[in-house]
Amino acid sequence: MNPHLLSIDSLDRGRVDHLLHVAGRMEPIASRRQVTRILEGAVLGNLFFEASTRTRVSFNAAFCRLGGSVCDTTGFTFSSMAKGESLYDTSRVMSGYCDAIVMRHPEQGSVAEFANATNVPVVNGGDGAGEHPSQALLDLYTIDKEFTRRGKTLPGAHILLTGDLLHGRTVHSLIKLLSLYPPMRITLVAPPGLAMPPALVELVASRGHHVEQRDSLASDFGDLDVVYTTRIQKERFTSELSETFNGVSADFLVNKGFMDRRCTADTIVMHPLPRDSRPDANDLDVDLNGDPRLAIFRQTDNGIPMRMAIFATLLQVEDLVEKDMRPVRWFVPERLGTRDD
Amino acid sequence: MNPHLLSIDSLDRGRVDHLLHVAGRMEPIASRRQVTRILEGAVLGNLFFEASTRTRVSFNAAFCRLGGSVCDTTGFTFSSMAKGESLYDTSRVMSGYCDAIVMRHPEQGSVAEFANATNVPVVNGGDGAGEHPSQALLDLYTIDKEFTRRGKTLPGAHILLTGDLLHGRTVHSLIKLLSLYPPMRITLVAPPGLAMPPALVELVASRGHHVEQRDSLASDFGDLDVVYTTRIQKERFTSELSETFNGVSADFLVNKGFMDRRCTADTIVMHPLPRDSRPDANDLDVDLNGDPRLAIFRQTDNGIPMRMAIFATLLQVEDLVEKDMRPVRWFVPERLGTRDD
Amino acid sequence: MNPHLLSIDSLDRGRVDHLLHVAGRMEPIASRRQVTRILEGAVLGNLFFEASTRTRVSFNAAFCRLGGSVCDTTGFTFSSMAKGESLYDTSRVMSGYCDAIVMRHPEQGSVAEFANATNVPVVNGGDGAGEHPSQALLDLYTIDKEFTRRGKTLPGAHILLTGDLLHGRTVHSLIKLLSLYPPMRITLVAPPGLAMPPALVELVASRGHHVEQRDSLASDFGDLDVVYTTRIQKERFTSELSETFNGVSADFLVNKGFMDRRCTADTIVMHPLPRDSRPDANDLDVDLNGDPRLAIFRQTDNGIPMRMAIFATLLQVEDLVEKDMRPVRWFVPERLGTRDD
Repeated sequence: MNPHLLSIDSLDRGRVDHLLHVAGRMEPIASRRQVTRILEGAVLGNLFFEASTRTRVSFNAAFCRLGGSVCDTTGFTFSSMAKGESLYDTSRVMSGYCDAIVMRHPEQGSVAEFANATNVPVVNGGDGAGEHPSQALLDLYTIDKEFTRRGKTLPGAHILLTGDLLHGRTVHSLIKLLSLYPPMRITLVAPPGLAMPPALVELVASRGHHVEQRDSLASDFGDLDVVYTTRIQKERFTSELSETFNGVSADFLVNKGFMDRRCTADTIVMHPLPRDSRPDANDLDVDLNGDPRLAIFRQTDNGIPMRMAIFATLLQVEDLVEKDMRPVRWFVPERLGTRDD
Repeated sequence: MNPHLLSIDSLDRGRVDHLLHVAGRMEPIASRRQVTRILEGAVLGNLFFEASTRTRVSFNAAFCRLGGSVCDTTGFTFSSMAKGESLYDTSRVMSGYCDAIVMRHPEQGSVAEFANATNVPVVNGGDGAGEHPSQALLDLYTIDKEFTRRGKTLPGAHILLTGDLLHGRTVHSLIKLLSLYPPMRITLVAPPGLAMPPALVELVASRGHHVEQRDSLASDFGDLDVVYTTRIQKERFTSELSETFNGVSADFLVNKGFMDRRCTADTIVMHPLPRDSRPDANDLDVDLNGDPRLAIFRQTDNGIPMRMAIFATLLQVEDLVEKDMRPVRWFVPERLGTRDD
Repeated sequence: MNPHLLSIDSLDRGRVDHLLHVAGRMEPIASRRQVTRILEGAVLGNLFFEASTRTRVSFNAAFCRLGGSVCDTTGFTFSSMAKGESLYDTSRVMSGYCDAIVMRHPEQGSVAEFANATNVPVVNGGDGAGEHPSQALLDLYTIDKEFTRRGKTLPGAHILLTGDLLHGRTVHSLIKLLSLYPPMRITLVAPPGLAMPPALVELVASRGHHVEQRDSLASDFGDLDVVYTTRIQKERFTSELSETFNGVSADFLVNKGFMDRRCTADTIVMHPLPRDSRPDANDLDVDLNGDPRLAIFRQTDNGIPMRMAIFATLLQVEDLVEKDMRPVRWFVPERLGTRDD
């Protein structure tokens, strides 16, 4: 078995299904009804060479909820690398300290290079324009969970992806994951210059999915099951694109108006977060806060059971967790947010 | 019950007394004679958007001593916020990862705004010129503990507050807390331009306390029970104040000479720390180090039982801790410092 | 007993032998076959005022593997110190939060000054050009372990130290440690201007060791048991030295060619890491990766049992660990690296 989780490309349908299944079994712990200490004594090296709070804390909390301890490293400058240390050396050294390693790094391919030097499980926490497989897995887990609750299934579903489909590594990874399942209808809506890379569109189509590309949200899409929105990632624009890009027009705004006009009461809205809530960003609108169709916070909550499932399978304890549970003794609010669901 | 601890204003006398009582029950753990694991499996999100070592480590250690795990986030730049994420989204996202959240932030009101989006307990670790309630609570706990040891009580006590009474959020919060108790005598001594805000003086007076303001330490105050000194917070000065302020003269220096002239052997000296020990700072003098009246290190030590009490009450485990204790097995020095007491 | 570990100078032969012995007893845990929780409830303050990932994570992981919790502080700017707080105050304050403290600081002597204010055990994690005793101890532990495996002993061994012997605090500490043992042959090879300080050479010679200094690796050394290489520490150069220093010539390169020409199949190569793998750095060559004589990764792995031994002895739990072990339940790879040994 591949001991790492580096790319969606290395996952087959069986391993994905197993991860979804294990994530479900982690729910009693993730939702804080039960506690486990199965990884007590284990140490996670959480290496974030690119700034991130959400993803870092999510991996950290998931490992803690399995009973392990976490050593965080954050920041762009990494002392040893600044002194000329190779990724090979860094990786092998960290292997002596940690039982599992999560790494985020601004350079595409760096996490895979890091993983080459170690037999300790490595999880890609995002490598620049590359991949972010745990996000795609928690997205798929969210769709599956929301569908199950509504009596729907993945095959035949209609999923709309919109926003910066060129730079959004989360949509790239998600569309690859979806393509492993029986045919769906996938609609892609991106502003000019930010369309999904053609190779990915072809891959998905070649696996039997119906893919359609539109250049505006102002049209009739038929019944939509999922609207997946993403932030415009100006920090990844080429200088050429930066010069010609005029901002996102309101035509690409997903808000209550769009949902009421184009969607049903059963359509869910997703977003990998963070969303840009500044005026004129035209990112997913806050007027949907409190609307039960807004699944973005249930989606981020799902990061915990999915990342627990990733650690549990890589460290091969997924079948031991249930025997090692006991009830939580502290206060847990019925709902995490004040305006949820 | 209010699930958060955001401001001293939200506390009534009953809740304060309960916190003092619970802090006392945490002493066997805080002083490292006993260990508890009551919060095993729980995760604290320790979000420090303003630099702090003492407060951050104190909250962190208090949560660890209850058996929980901690995810620290430090630094002025917070990646998601830099990408336009709202406090609402950040708060709701963190709620999915953590069982309790401590937040320090440079903007007044930001912690309350953060708490609006979550049902997970939030503790204000300091919001700019706003509040820092856990510091005031540990200060009150210290006064109470030191008084008890000396056979004194709060009612009728004489407490002198000196230093930067304009910007010192700790003295603002402390004076509010003290005002909940039966009448005391409170003397305020600040350099010109740094006096306690009049609204606070009026509040305390309106609750029956005897408040007196002086402009120098060079006078007779009668019997003093507590001398509470604070650092001049130049980093919070307006530009106008910075131009006119000439530094603190030696008239405001609390040192061995002052203590011997104006105080008794039973007067204690407090300081929220850090104290500025550079020459000419005229902050609390180091010549009191080793003097038993210097309570500043017992005061900072008290941060552990009080912050344990805050977490224990917010997470509703305060009545479970005693049943979940066992003796410490490692070496604990009889005294923590080399010149204590 | 001295409650701290500040300098190799404070260690006698008995205490060193005890540490080596305890480190050996920590191996079942360090190699992840067993788990202990002996320090459950204890808190380590890991204070790194100078950037470091390896050393910080190594101390952190070692404390976690003993069952304790860790509060990390990293970065050059330390808020309280920036506000004029003395090392005395910082030390005494941290003593109230933590059961043990590791400190790295850019100024020589600062860690000892810090330790003066506290009875809580303090470990020097490196103080500028000063000492780094835990590195020297893990180096000695490595030599001892590698020798034992090969049927060799320390007395009579031939050890070559090369690289920046002027600034390398690890070689300074190591040579002091070695000097506590019966006579060995020690060969020092440094580029011009980077020779070992004469006082250290004299100390070692005065204890009966045979010390020889050479100015190139291009000569016959006889049978070598250990080749200890170090990085050129340009960041510690004086401006005068920076101007005259022409870089390290290939004459000082330890690589496969040198090992095959000058060493035996039983000679081990060590390096305190990080090594500079950039072209022209002429640091220890990567062409030895995968060669069983390259002991650098076994050496860094040994940081865990040795740092566990340091904590266990300072906190006096070394005799309790064995009774408090249970088997690891998660997946542990047979070898940590992909090209080990």
